Amino acid sequence: MVNISPLLSVRHLLALSLVLNVSLMLSVILERAKLEERLNLHPMKPKQINISPLNGDREVADNGEAILNLDHGDPTMYEKYWHRMGDRTTVVISGWQFTSYFSDPKNLCWFLEPELAEEIIRLHKMVGNAITNGYHIVVGTGSSQLFQAVLYALSSDTTEPVSVVSAAPYYSSYPMITDCLKSGLYKWEGDAWSFDKDGPYIELITSPNNPDGFIRQSVVNRSGGILVHDFAYYWPQYTPITAPADHNLMLFTISKTTGHAGMRIGWALVKDEIVAKKMVKYIELNTIGVSKDSQLRAAKILRVISDGSGLAHRFDGETFFGFSHRIMELRWDLLREAVNKSRIFSLPNFTPEFCNYWGRVFQPLPAFAWLKCKDGIEDCETLLRGHKILTRSGRYFGVSPSFVRISMLTRDQTFNLFVQRLSRIHSWNEER
Amino acid sequence: MVNISPLLSVRHLLALSLVLNVSLMLSVILERAKLEERLNLHPMKPKQINISPLNGDREVADNGEAILNLDHGDPTMYEKYWHRMGDRTTVVISGWQFTSYFSDPKNLCWFLEPELAEEIIRLHKMVGNAITNGYHIVVGTGSSQLFQAVLYALSSDTTEPVSVVSAAPYYSSYPMITDCLKSGLYKWEGDAWSFDKDGPYIELITSPNNPDGFIRQSVVNRSGGILVHDFAYYWPQYTPITAPADHNLMLFTISKTTGHAGMRIGWALVKDEIVAKKMVKYIELNTIGVSKDSQLRAAKILRVISDGSGLAHRFDGETFFGFSHRIMELRWDLLREAVNKSRIFSLPNFTPEFCNYWGRVFQPLPAFAWLKCKDGIEDCETLLRGHKILTRSGRYFGVSPSFVRISMLTRDQTFNLFVQRLSRIHSWNEER
Repeated sequence: MVNISPLLSVRHLLALSLVLNVSLMLSVILERAKLEERLNLHPMKPKQINISPLNGDREVADNGEAILNLDHGDPTMYEKYWHRMGDRTTVVISGWQFTSYFSDPKNLCWFLEPELAEEIIRLHKMVGNAITNGYHIVVGTGSSQLFQAVLYALSSDTTEPVSVVSAAPYYSSYPMITDCLKSGLYKWEGDAWSFDKDGPYIELITSPNNPDGFIRQSVVNRSGGILVHDFAYYWPQYTPITAPADHNLMLFTISKTTGHAGMRIGWALVKDEIVAKKMVKYIELNTIGVSKDSQLRAAKILRVISDGSGLAHRFDGETFFGFSHRIMELRWDLLREAVNKSRIFSLPNFTPEFCNYWGRVFQPLPAFAWLKCKDGIEDCETLLRGHKILTRSGRYFGVSPSFVRISMLTRDQTFNLFVQRLSRIHSWNEER
Repeated sequence: MVNISPLLSVRHLLALSLVLNVSLMLSVILERAKLEERLNLHPMKPKQINISPLNGDREVADNGEAILNLDHGDPTMYEKYWHRMGDRTTVVISGWQFTSYFSDPKNLCWFLEPELAEEIIRLHKMVGNAITNGYHIVVGTGSSQLFQAVLYALSSDTTEPVSVVSAAPYYSSYPMITDCLKSGLYKWEGDAWSFDKDGPYIELITSPNNPDGFIRQSVVNRSGGILVHDFAYYWPQYTPITAPADHNLMLFTISKTTGHAGMRIGWALVKDEIVAKKMVKYIELNTIGVSKDSQLRAAKILRVISDGSGLAHRFDGETFFGFSHRIMELRWDLLREAVNKSRIFSLPNFTPEFCNYWGRVFQPLPAFAWLKCKDGIEDCETLLRGHKILTRSGRYFGVSPSFVRISMLTRDQTFNLFVQRLSRIHSWNEER
């Protein structure tokens, strides 16, 4: 019994322990399954990963039939980077979040999520492209809404409509947005170079410029004007960061910073408190604030960029700006090569500048290519459309239709087909 | 040895099994921690659960000092329900999602997420409050933006400004939104009851009405008018659903349907294709579409409501509409009791109607209380402000300041303090 009893006892313990093992193994399997399920509450759509058509076009091996839509600045180029980052930028939003209109009732911009404000300041400090100290942050449903908020803020107390101008070639949406409601507060007056009307005016300065990529300054140079700086493209993947900008009114957008155009998040840095308050009032009247889901997501993505791009890691190709800058360099090399081959097109030439962020000199790599048709070709958009390449004509930007604007931010496949096809166009009448 | 060997062997097995137990236990703990971490990528803010101040006020036991802000229709009442639902409405959004401006390029409303469109149709069918067949869905950044899109769509081809009217008391934001940009396309002309101007007009019909909760019809009754129906409150927690609405232009909003005001999602059901296209154009110019993160989240929440509210479960208090309807009944009972006690206030009396959704007769339970001060008290807002109850004066709604609008959708604690405090107000000069 002395021998049997402990033996039985040990055997019993073993049996118990084995039962526990099985139960624990099941538990591990179940927990994993639960985790998978939770992370897939919104099932991934494989069609969105690589084979998603851009604006309806089919991306296939080039038989010349695929329509390449480069009209919009749809920043789908960035999708690949965010795929690589896996779960690092995933956000989880619970059903009970955001029942209130208010994000931060005591803040001048009461619909701005404090986390987003923090990350905006942190990113500007790290990149060195804008001063944030002494500025109010106003968040908007993209920078288009902020542009309208600025127009309202700068004109709501005037007796006559304020003139709105921008040097041609200017962003094609400015005239339409300004005049679509026939506002009595402001009026589009076109090209700033030829502006000579009396009275108050607003000059829009997009720098680097959309469509042509050049760094810009005010051109009107007269009293009574208010300058609005659209810095959508003043980021180190596109252009050398030469100094932190410190103008009175500066606009930025997530769409062109991180590539998340579907979020509809932009922000303004505003020096004057009264102007900032009026902008907030406009956004209150227009949309009663800005999606908090997207603000939360934008904050997360900016945080991951800042976390990964500290001084130690800046030059790593795996950082966001490192990756994006490398792609832009590659694409501009390919485009210039294709343009040289084709002989009937030309591109702007940029002066290389020293970039404080990268610590080296480089030539601007704009988000749009501003292509000119030579050889007396008057309508470049129509020429390219004949080759199933959709672009935006210079006439929408206040200049000659011998120019077109071409998005450089499309997915790889579309971009590669585009440069291939462009390099084979040698004259107006040529067969493809 | 014969006895010892198996004994040792069993003991070895036991030891091995115990080691495995420990390792598996650790594994379970780690998996759980991982799950917690993933689900907390955005850390929950406990302050938002129950003790979050509404618009900055502190909710404490009533010493008469807490400011009760019932000015805005902030639907924080719903937070409790969504908390109870736990993870069922959680969404997970990966970093690579939504780099494109486009949701569905082939759809008339190219920025509408197809999942949201599906769930909108499904919910309307289940509730029976609107016909969707033959309508275009246009999504907006809340219904305010859709209202502006409607104004643009209905006036962009006219030569003179279109008159915009609504029967008083009308939603206080209509005049400001209509006139803030001094548009040459449309002009606020005030109370529809006294409208007698020639020319085209738009009549806004909010039904149930904000602020007073009554069901409404057009009052102008003249040719040349276009009717816009704002159905923000035509849901079964607020009012009997007597028939599916089938007007030309109908507006809805997530804020008042599910309580997610922070999402900024609304939708329009539009019969006329040309009008729908112009509305889409306005939203393109105004904000280049609508947050896809919020659209995804709205779709998920509507799906959970529809899944849980099928015919079999409709009368379960745990369904969304069951829960919300019960709270509204309770709140209106408490409010009517407090008003009876105070003697100097009155509330509208509603005719009970048969509700197709609930299959029974009930009296409307509006999202706002339209309170009137009696006894010659001319400024009800000031009276209540003296008791630290913030409301919105009747004068903003085009009527007498003896009325105030009071939100019924605040958190429990604020609402309970409000009815307690209201029941103790007996006259203008009385001490609290």
